[in-house]
Amino acid sequence: MAPDRLDTTFAALADPTRRAILARLASGEASVMELAEPFAMTQPAISKHLKVLERAGLISRGRDAQRRPCRIEARPLAEADEWLEGYRQFWEDSFQRLDALLEEMKTRKKKRRHIRR
Amino acid sequence: MAPDRLDTTFAALADPTRRAILARLASGEASVMELAEPFAMTQPAISKHLKVLERAGLISRGRDAQRRPCRIEARPLAEADEWLEGYRQFWEDSFQRLDALLEEMKTRKKKRRHIRR
Repeated sequence: MAPDRLDTTFAALADPTRRAILARLASGEASVMELAEPFAMTQPAISKHLKVLERAGLISRGRDAQRRPCRIEARPLAEADEWLEGYRQFWEDSFQRLDALLEEMKTRKKKRRHIRR
Repeated sequence: MAPDRLDTTFAALADPTRRAILARLASGEASVMELAEPFAMTQPAISKHLKVLERAGLISRGRDAQRRPCRIEARPLAEADEWLEGYRQFWEDSFQRLDALLEEMKTRKKKRRHIRR
């Protein structure tokens, strides 16, 4: 997994329109025209975002010259996920610490109630 | 999960030095000086990267005025992972298709060998 590949993947994902385009393509191929409609964006504006996604390998374009339908490509997402997996331990640890803290607070609250009675 | 939070997280991760800083912090807290050393970068250059990571909530800085040790923060990574999880089906599907294709190619190869005999 080349580091620059992760650079372009993460940079491409750092935009809400591009993430929304991927979400739309997750339900099937779409042409630029079909993509531009729900976003209330011009086709050139959408085309710019598509170029970023295509350069990052996150989408591919069909050969049909008229429609050139866009399709989501999973590999860069899988690579980004693989990188994040290396840090899973950290959030699992911190969520466990949070759970333990909440449990401790509940126990203390119960004890206090018991004392008041 | 606010969309702009994902924007800053993915943008912060789109840089090899920043990802390397997180990898270093995964093995424990470190001061700017300790971080600058292995990267052969000046402290101001490292500080710039740390500011991006801090703004994205990916690291926090200790209160010790002298060292201000950096610590990795898991929550934005967990959120990025959660977003990617929504697409897991895509790479699992495409890897399964690849497996099926390889299996088919193997079977064809065997058949061809059989015919040659």
